[in-house]
Amino acid sequence: MTLNKEILLTARPDGNPIGPHMFEVIESETPALSEGQFLIKQTHMSMDPAMIGWMMPDEESYIPPVALNTRMRSSGFGEVVASENSEFAAGDKVMGMMGWTEYAITNGQGINKVSNDIDAETALSVFALPGLTATQGLLNIGKPKSGETIVVTGAAGSVGSIVGQLAKAEGLRVIGVVGSDEKADWIVNELGFDGAINYKKDDLKSQLESLTPDGVDLFFENTGGPIQHHIFDRMNAHGRIVVCGMIADYTASEPSAGPNWIPLIKKRITVQGFAMPDHLHQVPQLLEKLTPYVMNGQIQYRTHVLNGLESAMSAMNLFFTGENKGKLLIEL
Amino acid sequence: MTLNKEILLTARPDGNPIGPHMFEVIESETPALSEGQFLIKQTHMSMDPAMIGWMMPDEESYIPPVALNTRMRSSGFGEVVASENSEFAAGDKVMGMMGWTEYAITNGQGINKVSNDIDAETALSVFALPGLTATQGLLNIGKPKSGETIVVTGAAGSVGSIVGQLAKAEGLRVIGVVGSDEKADWIVNELGFDGAINYKKDDLKSQLESLTPDGVDLFFENTGGPIQHHIFDRMNAHGRIVVCGMIADYTASEPSAGPNWIPLIKKRITVQGFAMPDHLHQVPQLLEKLTPYVMNGQIQYRTHVLNGLESAMSAMNLFFTGENKGKLLIEL
Repeated sequence: MTLNKEILLTARPDGNPIGPHMFEVIESETPALSEGQFLIKQTHMSMDPAMIGWMMPDEESYIPPVALNTRMRSSGFGEVVASENSEFAAGDKVMGMMGWTEYAITNGQGINKVSNDIDAETALSVFALPGLTATQGLLNIGKPKSGETIVVTGAAGSVGSIVGQLAKAEGLRVIGVVGSDEKADWIVNELGFDGAINYKKDDLKSQLESLTPDGVDLFFENTGGPIQHHIFDRMNAHGRIVVCGMIADYTASEPSAGPNWIPLIKKRITVQGFAMPDHLHQVPQLLEKLTPYVMNGQIQYRTHVLNGLESAMSAMNLFFTGENKGKLLIEL
Repeated sequence: MTLNKEILLTARPDGNPIGPHMFEVIESETPALSEGQFLIKQTHMSMDPAMIGWMMPDEESYIPPVALNTRMRSSGFGEVVASENSEFAAGDKVMGMMGWTEYAITNGQGINKVSNDIDAETALSVFALPGLTATQGLLNIGKPKSGETIVVTGAAGSVGSIVGQLAKAEGLRVIGVVGSDEKADWIVNELGFDGAINYKKDDLKSQLESLTPDGVDLFFENTGGPIQHHIFDRMNAHGRIVVCGMIADYTASEPSAGPNWIPLIKKRITVQGFAMPDHLHQVPQLLEKLTPYVMNGQIQYRTHVLNGLESAMSAMNLFFTGENKGKLLIEL
């Protein structure tokens, strides 16, 4: 029996900052393991923008909302410390949906072993939700063609930064939209994007026009916000828009207006929303595509690490302000 | 040499009703035929909502705009009256893009022979742009599945009425949005739709909810307007939206707002605009699908016929008011 601390969701987002008033921290002894179970000591929790959606009381979404007064949902990385399961042994490194908890007891469903040469940060930044979402969204939904121009919003984010690097590797002209000059510098000078727009500062329309002289063939949308309309207006005939995130609108009481649909007809554009849980059967194919790029060093990432379980309660606000620099992780 | 009358476009739509002030009627002798040419006496001109788009000065659209001071573009039906072309003989019935003219001289490009057992009204209402657009949009873009629910706007229109009947034939629950009780009666009692909403009169939201108890899987959009948002809100997971027309917004100086994109992610919806000229290579396949339904009597249509070339100049306003009852044709 081990003393465990975990965090329950006790209230829904209401447009105000997310914080401790919406959660309850509880401590308890972990129960004894039954046959088939094992105990994971979580070392890193992944914080992803999608989690904001999971907190909303929306029964129509792609996975059920987190029920009130249950453990907040998240993926994480950890080490098996005790096992009554023949497939997992103490010392195994694992990754999967563990939630906001120091220790997790599981029968192994949704938990995958991680090779010893992959560390927690790479595992959660590249080979988990962000990397899989980026790969599925760009390659299978966006269907990029070498020579095309892509614009990625949230381009310094965990998904956007991988989308842009994958698109470069596939031969596209890649323009990223970010919220600070520091991020603009990072995506252009470190990740190799062809250009960056700081949506908080630049003249969006003229900057977009000068960076996309041939228009936009592919628009990978992670944020929403006013830049959406400018990019939409630059779309070329037969353009594709992959809608992956709308962080600017997630907790708005009145979501902002979308673009009128006439250009969809005139330019024969496809707009497609997707969520990674629909595509889990494609994970092996996605990893096959992604892994060599990571091994070649064509996919870089950076992490923004907070410390301690309780820091999770306010961490998601960084997605709204854009203050996180890199994949947001909680180290336990 | 034959005395011909034709109509040139001399001004672009400006949001006011379309009328004679935007056109010039000219008369001239038809020139002698060169080798390879033939002369068609047009008997019926087709009036389609897409023509409004062709009049706009938009160089980004799927076909170039009609140049000012040139013949207004339209498809039509006629009979060859003289020929220097070995493949077309006097007496042949033909269909194709002839424009607003009593006689057309052509080398045959874009002109197709029509079998003698198909009359002008069937040819232009079903086997031309409306029927092909409906078949392509519903079957190849919308990918309907038996048992699903479809909502069609402009459901008594030339495209919408065929979409709805095709969808019934494919086993879907079919709800149509129309602009009058008479049209509602027609689509339900004559065409076999499962329900109708009169957008000018009904409480859109509650009527839509009661007619689509299982939500909406497929939304075939011909009109735009406020009903768009209500249908969008009813979409089911993995829904498809086929954007074929936006007549309510075509001449608006300020196009109305579209829906926010968050539901596209939550419900993994695809929104796809299309235009038939991209799909001309699929026409044989579309006719193969469409023809048996027409032969079986599963596709009915009705026409709204105006008389005389000059009547074309004001005819398109009927699309905005919805006063046309059936496929709009001009009989010459």
